[in-house]
Amino acid sequence: MSTLPDYSQGVAYVRGQYVPIGEAAIPITDWGFLRSDATYDVVTVWDGAFFRLDAHMERFLASCARFRLDPGRTAAEIAAVLEQCVRLSGLRSSYVEMIVTRGQPPWGSRDPRQAVNQFYAFAVPYVWIANEAQRAQGLNLIVSDVQRIPASSVDPRAKNYHWNDLTMGLLGALDAGGDTVVLRDAAGNVVEGPGFNVFCVNAQGRIVTPAEGVLEGVTRRTVIEMAAALGLPLDLRALPADELRGAREVFLSTSGGGVLPVTRVDGQAVGNGAVGPVVRQLVQTYWDWHRDPRYSQPVRY
Amino acid sequence: MSTLPDYSQGVAYVRGQYVPIGEAAIPITDWGFLRSDATYDVVTVWDGAFFRLDAHMERFLASCARFRLDPGRTAAEIAAVLEQCVRLSGLRSSYVEMIVTRGQPPWGSRDPRQAVNQFYAFAVPYVWIANEAQRAQGLNLIVSDVQRIPASSVDPRAKNYHWNDLTMGLLGALDAGGDTVVLRDAAGNVVEGPGFNVFCVNAQGRIVTPAEGVLEGVTRRTVIEMAAALGLPLDLRALPADELRGAREVFLSTSGGGVLPVTRVDGQAVGNGAVGPVVRQLVQTYWDWHRDPRYSQPVRY
Repeated sequence: MSTLPDYSQGVAYVRGQYVPIGEAAIPITDWGFLRSDATYDVVTVWDGAFFRLDAHMERFLASCARFRLDPGRTAAEIAAVLEQCVRLSGLRSSYVEMIVTRGQPPWGSRDPRQAVNQFYAFAVPYVWIANEAQRAQGLNLIVSDVQRIPASSVDPRAKNYHWNDLTMGLLGALDAGGDTVVLRDAAGNVVEGPGFNVFCVNAQGRIVTPAEGVLEGVTRRTVIEMAAALGLPLDLRALPADELRGAREVFLSTSGGGVLPVTRVDGQAVGNGAVGPVVRQLVQTYWDWHRDPRYSQPVRY
Repeated sequence: MSTLPDYSQGVAYVRGQYVPIGEAAIPITDWGFLRSDATYDVVTVWDGAFFRLDAHMERFLASCARFRLDPGRTAAEIAAVLEQCVRLSGLRSSYVEMIVTRGQPPWGSRDPRQAVNQFYAFAVPYVWIANEAQRAQGLNLIVSDVQRIPASSVDPRAKNYHWNDLTMGLLGALDAGGDTVVLRDAAGNVVEGPGFNVFCVNAQGRIVTPAEGVLEGVTRRTVIEMAAALGLPLDLRALPADELRGAREVFLSTSGGGVLPVTRVDGQAVGNGAVGPVVRQLVQTYWDWHRDPRYSQPVRY
């Protein structure tokens, strides 16, 4: 007598099978682990619908090409796997990750070109980078002394798991009483944090976000498009840490919660220390767009 | 009726169990994979004995401390697991890896301090970075334009899986007809390659290897100690790519084969293009030291 697997905590697609997330594993010998030789993307499902699935798929395939990784599937086939993960889980709001790893070459070879790449996916409950209190009151963001891995070493436009700098920066920020962290580049400009892009509304009232050295986040793109739609001035350029500290408003963009307010930088209040009007407008618009069929694609449960 | 597992291809230690390497897997949700939040070390067994196990263990525990990862075991307990992996495999020459991953924090937490770290190990057949022909004739080493991840981003002294720069550089080198690759730092000095340190015997007859921005390899340390024992002059300092190109001899140091000759850099002959006398002397001494009880510790099969 068989019992149905418990898919309620999430579902993964591993070697052609759908399994409960707790049973999903990758071979310890996969270079995706032993060399962090992998790329990935995360799309969310909110209230039963994928948000901007096409944009995530486009970036995922571009990331694969940059790292010479082959998902072995078309965009439509990948989308079908993601939808099946969500469908089996029954989750109405979900964090859905697609992954390609290098796999491994024949034993004794050190040639990545001979490896058989592997495709994985999973759907788990929606992930918030900030909890409910943090979303209401705003985050305390710490500017770290750890330098973000430069684009001359690892292409940040291809989403990757090279997070040691972000992790060590995050540990330092948490120890210092902060909520999360943003790293800087070699020139001292802020670039990105663990799982998000960063924006400010500067002293002149212009929205600024770094142009280079960052992941080109889909939520970042959504913020840029929302600003255009709302008539808010926005500049893509280097963002000095002092401009961030002296800004009227600061916020993060992420698939892990959309637009998230920052009300303190290094423990010091941003503006008057409350969540500001531009952030409120962008948060509202972000969630409104989830009901817009231009961006939203219902899951067939 | 049970049959014995096939351990001949290698053995892994996973969640307290010894399993055939082909069955060894880590949870897809372990941050060791999803954030490459892990450290590791590799010790070799040659002709039935560990080589410099103490030095590897010391570095492994130092790497753990740098990344705030806890193996949850003493050095003696880790050594016992490694020996059991080798013993079960029956391998007389083996590549033995020990790993600590971050694991994962309770669901919903993004705090690495709340994660339960995980210890893994495995023993597989000895890995050679260079094949037999390459060891006899010397490698063609390509100097890459990809910049090595700087120490200001990720501490290279803590052995880590942040290899995307090395992998992309290696792909470029293989495409160009090279055998392997060395990366440079932002100042243009060569630093390290995928799994090895680099040395030259420069035009003045002095051995030079980079002092900083590299993994402090145990085989690198062995070369430094062999040079002292043999009365060969050695300098630890920055190594410009042009000094490497104009050297009499070039070689690599790695647990994946010891001292490996390089006879071409970017396709151009080093010296007269043959394996030189200093490299031959170091190769001989490296293998001689494997029979020296100061460095060698027999496996109890």
